[in-house]
Amino acid sequence: MNNTTETSPSLEGGEALNIIKVGGNIIDNEEKLTSFLDDFSKLKGLKVLIHGGGKVATEISKGLGIEAQMVDGRRITDAETLKIVTMVYGGLINKRLVAQLQARNNNAIGLTGADANIIPAHKRPANPIDFGFVGDVEKEKMDGKTLALLLENGMVPILAPLTHDQQGNMLNTNADTIASTVAVSLSKKFNVNLIYCFEKEGVLNAEDNVIGEITKSYFAKLKEEGVVVAGMIPKLDNAFEAINQGVKAVYIMHADGLLNLINEGISTGTLIK
Amino acid sequence: MNNTTETSPSLEGGEALNIIKVGGNIIDNEEKLTSFLDDFSKLKGLKVLIHGGGKVATEISKGLGIEAQMVDGRRITDAETLKIVTMVYGGLINKRLVAQLQARNNNAIGLTGADANIIPAHKRPANPIDFGFVGDVEKEKMDGKTLALLLENGMVPILAPLTHDQQGNMLNTNADTIASTVAVSLSKKFNVNLIYCFEKEGVLNAEDNVIGEITKSYFAKLKEEGVVVAGMIPKLDNAFEAINQGVKAVYIMHADGLLNLINEGISTGTLIK
Repeated sequence: MNNTTETSPSLEGGEALNIIKVGGNIIDNEEKLTSFLDDFSKLKGLKVLIHGGGKVATEISKGLGIEAQMVDGRRITDAETLKIVTMVYGGLINKRLVAQLQARNNNAIGLTGADANIIPAHKRPANPIDFGFVGDVEKEKMDGKTLALLLENGMVPILAPLTHDQQGNMLNTNADTIASTVAVSLSKKFNVNLIYCFEKEGVLNAEDNVIGEITKSYFAKLKEEGVVVAGMIPKLDNAFEAINQGVKAVYIMHADGLLNLINEGISTGTLIK
Repeated sequence: MNNTTETSPSLEGGEALNIIKVGGNIIDNEEKLTSFLDDFSKLKGLKVLIHGGGKVATEISKGLGIEAQMVDGRRITDAETLKIVTMVYGGLINKRLVAQLQARNNNAIGLTGADANIIPAHKRPANPIDFGFVGDVEKEKMDGKTLALLLENGMVPILAPLTHDQQGNMLNTNADTIASTVAVSLSKKFNVNLIYCFEKEGVLNAEDNVIGEITKSYFAKLKEEGVVVAGMIPKLDNAFEAINQGVKAVYIMHADGLLNLINEGISTGTLIK
């Protein structure tokens, strides 16, 4: 394992870029979404938004009589479900965000990983579980050039959690992974902050208070003491991986704190560095 | 009325750009679509694809129990229908075309008019008929800059028949109008051919033979003689309007003739100039 201070390059001349991932819980809630978009549109500087899927896809599937396919308790993206998520994530949600941000004078451009092949991916191997049309991102092939071009020309990319298999099929893809992959690829050119917005104030300690900052050594200690809950460990592992690969800082925080963090430099969530 | 030779500027230095509109009849038919995409992917030089909607939106509406709203025999885009067309045109169809073209080594990027505000529009006034969420393109505001940027960076824009009202709502928009507006805006920079692909070989004369070329004066004569069918007149009016505003040539033709036209310079359809 590398130590973060050794491997995180400092891009003194690089412009700041904030890459923000917002989950389905905000997408699904009209009031939360409006508030989020109000804040997001006011964020200064270069920014990218990655959105999750939310419950709309499930509702529309039900409406069309398509039943969720499960194997070992895990959801499978079969051909019919792929159509639904392509429509809902790539069409309904993505274009709604674009139209709403355009109305707030942000020059939003909505894309999937298939568009301009911005996120190269392949279908996840069927062994041991065949998840169907699910994409694994090919991180080593990501160059971030098209996204950089759009950013440098005043656009705000809005990314849906979809990629393609380079053989003509779209693929359902994890939004957290897209966010970290995009962040790493753009950290060659920009000073990247990767910000995961979720429904809590940050990573919590045993007393349910937000941990302000987690370094790699502190993370090891927290894991040892069993303080960090199991569901948070992969998120933090990914965060440190992103930092090892050039991302300046990762934040895990409530969406309400975004304006303060980016425009004022005051973090109310958890900083991972 | 202007004479075309007076107002069509000659862009001697401009690179050739082919803007191709393909209708729902090809989108709906698996075999025709595959054949079209095979040909489109082989077209040399800069190109843009504008696609229509097809029947999928109607089928999905039916599946969800949403009935088409009609006023005076004309289809209305109510809020529920808008969701469907945003999903189907902007998500399902657009991303399918992108993935299929990426698989054919075309660097396709799928967009609606809302993305980067590439096609400024407003909601059609409710008087005399309220068509609901239908967009009228604001041609005078189109600058084509973002599309030119994408083209100059090796991308192939794939445009869905959707715009936005600049107040947060998407709008259902006529694909023919988008095609001609995009063609006019890009003719400031490129030598633009605008190509409407449809199910016939071209504009037909009284003997059902393709008319190879229609000039403005010949069009007047054809109308006078009642040779051109009523449905074709608005298409031809739009074609001449595009030419008056800088488009080099407009073709109305069968999709099967695309490769011959663009790569070999042999037209089997109708040239309007």
